Amino acid sequence: MNDTPLLTLDLSHASTLDLGAVEAEVRRARETLETGTGPGAGMRGWLDLPRRQPPAEIARIRALAERIRGLDALVVVGIGGSYLGAAAVMGALADPFEAGFPVLFAGHHLDAGYYAALARRLAGKRYAVNVISKSGGTTEPSVAFRLLWNDLSSRFGAADLARLVVATTGARPSGLKRFQEEHGLEMLEVPEDVGGRFSVLSPVGLLPIAAAGCDVDALLDGAREAMELLRDPGRRDLASNPALAYAAFRLAAYRAGKKIEVLASSTPRLELLAEWWKQLYGESEGKGGKGLFPAAMSLTTDLHSLGQWMQDGERIVCETALDVVEDAPLAVPRIAGDIDGLSYLDGVPIHHVDRTAMHATLAAHADGGVPALRMELPRIDARAIGWLLYFFEYACGVSAYALGVNPFDQPGVEAYKKNMKAMLAK
Amino acid sequence: MNDTPLLTLDLSHASTLDLGAVEAEVRRARETLETGTGPGAGMRGWLDLPRRQPPAEIARIRALAERIRGLDALVVVGIGGSYLGAAAVMGALADPFEAGFPVLFAGHHLDAGYYAALARRLAGKRYAVNVISKSGGTTEPSVAFRLLWNDLSSRFGAADLARLVVATTGARPSGLKRFQEEHGLEMLEVPEDVGGRFSVLSPVGLLPIAAAGCDVDALLDGAREAMELLRDPGRRDLASNPALAYAAFRLAAYRAGKKIEVLASSTPRLELLAEWWKQLYGESEGKGGKGLFPAAMSLTTDLHSLGQWMQDGERIVCETALDVVEDAPLAVPRIAGDIDGLSYLDGVPIHHVDRTAMHATLAAHADGGVPALRMELPRIDARAIGWLLYFFEYACGVSAYALGVNPFDQPGVEAYKKNMKAMLAK
Repeated sequence: MNDTPLLTLDLSHASTLDLGAVEAEVRRARETLETGTGPGAGMRGWLDLPRRQPPAEIARIRALAERIRGLDALVVVGIGGSYLGAAAVMGALADPFEAGFPVLFAGHHLDAGYYAALARRLAGKRYAVNVISKSGGTTEPSVAFRLLWNDLSSRFGAADLARLVVATTGARPSGLKRFQEEHGLEMLEVPEDVGGRFSVLSPVGLLPIAAAGCDVDALLDGAREAMELLRDPGRRDLASNPALAYAAFRLAAYRAGKKIEVLASSTPRLELLAEWWKQLYGESEGKGGKGLFPAAMSLTTDLHSLGQWMQDGERIVCETALDVVEDAPLAVPRIAGDIDGLSYLDGVPIHHVDRTAMHATLAAHADGGVPALRMELPRIDARAIGWLLYFFEYACGVSAYALGVNPFDQPGVEAYKKNMKAMLAK
Repeated sequence: MNDTPLLTLDLSHASTLDLGAVEAEVRRARETLETGTGPGAGMRGWLDLPRRQPPAEIARIRALAERIRGLDALVVVGIGGSYLGAAAVMGALADPFEAGFPVLFAGHHLDAGYYAALARRLAGKRYAVNVISKSGGTTEPSVAFRLLWNDLSSRFGAADLARLVVATTGARPSGLKRFQEEHGLEMLEVPEDVGGRFSVLSPVGLLPIAAAGCDVDALLDGAREAMELLRDPGRRDLASNPALAYAAFRLAAYRAGKKIEVLASSTPRLELLAEWWKQLYGESEGKGGKGLFPAAMSLTTDLHSLGQWMQDGERIVCETALDVVEDAPLAVPRIAGDIDGLSYLDGVPIHHVDRTAMHATLAAHADGGVPALRMELPRIDARAIGWLLYFFEYACGVSAYALGVNPFDQPGVEAYKKNMKAMLAK
């Protein structure tokens, strides 16, 4: 057995759920994941990502990022897993006000007004483009890439273009691969056995994250620690393995008739991570008429919004809360005059008030029929975020197999892609 | 009868729902709302907001906003309805990249790291603060206001402070009211008969919106048009009154076993409006063990995420899509070389591709057991957003009464506020 987990779980607000009743299933699901005996087994390459990427390749990504940071901006072109992971990490680690080096996103929708605004933002700028598409044929990123490539190639020559544009794509032949070779663009490889929503720790996520100035080594270190601990064959029960406990919580809640899982985070810095989590779980489990609907809540903001429904609406929801132990040491200052009736808060650390609010909320929700799992993260830094990302991925593989679905396909999304092409090709 | 509605509804993807079966209930609910014979009737002041505010008061708000725009920034301090409305309108109407005059939010959570970053952002700046709190005693805005007031009062004298700080609060005596009088701060009044989530068209929303450079007159004009049309006693059936049709769609879906309503918008510019909508409906209806859970989806982004669950997960969801007819005229450019297999898109307006994707999606969802309502908005501008805000408010009042709950209380939120104070006061 390794060290204690960086992330610890508090199941005291989930006492109405019978986790013991699903433990054997969850353990079998983990075996299925580890032994590659389930559907989609060929797409488990992400399991080893934190250790299998050669240091030289990580160094190349860091060097590319450094070069890009000398330009005016980076535009990341990708959709779904090709942008949510990087956005999640950047949202967690970047200063919410000081933009630092601008990393902009495109190709994650088809909003014409946004592209018009983006063109104004980039006019005359010397910017890099990282186009991320495993197959090279997805409509949204293709449209954005065409706009950006045409802009850059109207202003720069072939040698410049080869330094401004990086293609992150699969090794298989594709139009994008051919284009990359033709123009001598830098290429980063999306591993064949890693699906989009499990790709944040591959070059898909790492280049944008490094370009934003985040520490990819610490991120990968955290993920490696999580990998070593969570995959340790000795950690086979719910008490010693938080990924199994989380999967058991989800399955027990689902069996108890819960239909929605709300991920509540204590800081807006984790809101994009919640978006990433929604894709990870929604796309992995939402099939065959099954699966918890993943929704997000930001505390304490949403206590003045969805909080009402959570406390008192349909009793079909369970809750997972991300509780960050350490944050900025700012205290509530005194104010002259009895302005708000809150003088008992004078000098109390704001973060303590925040955590107290979360704990009060979880207790009230549990009393009101909402089983809640509290996850304690020591702080928000690159290592902790790396740990958390791997944790959610591993627990997702286990959870989906326990639910009886293939965690690694997305037939509904493929159907949408095909339908849309058919409608547009008419 | 007035003109045709600015917003038109397409119910063709909701044919599995029996709207006729709930029409009588919805009509009665509207009577309850209009005649003030239901619970919470004293909180219907928002019904008249678009016409009852004196032009001189609107002019004063515009003048205050102009003065504020001469400073370095405005910090809006408020939570729940005291910030979501302004954020929604600004998100819809502002350029996503060119920030213009900075309007920042605070007091909408207790994230210490955020406040530390905000302090860095504002260091040495001459900024305005608009503190918005009806009662003046809500913890989150109080904490933020103390921080900002102490910063400003350490650097500016009383005369300056009186010009930098605006209090938007209720007329009743409170600590905040007393503080405002003592320091001679400008005051804007939150009408006693308007609750937070219905307050966007009152001074609560109007000052921040005007300070952000949005056209509050056009916003109010749109709301007034909606008010006149939707409240027209002649428009009493689902065909002539889109608010009644929307309320009927929601009730029929709920009766058919749907537990979640997803608001799908075709542009990230409407994502904050969806947050406002979530509060409006979640807080108005989520009580007594009832109510659809409000969730949001951003198209086409989330088709590569929640799209899988929507198409193929639990069949407990209905969908409302905001379809914007007109947007920037940008077309998909040609690119040299067969890079993406999408040459059939050459020259097609991007917005056409986007709308085609939405229409294909709604059809597929409806086929897959997700009844869908499409709302057609002619464009995104201040008038259309004003129309939409009033529409959602009016339909919400009707919908909640039809569900059999008081649309205007929030017992769960009040319970949270009390619990938290009790825990912290220990």
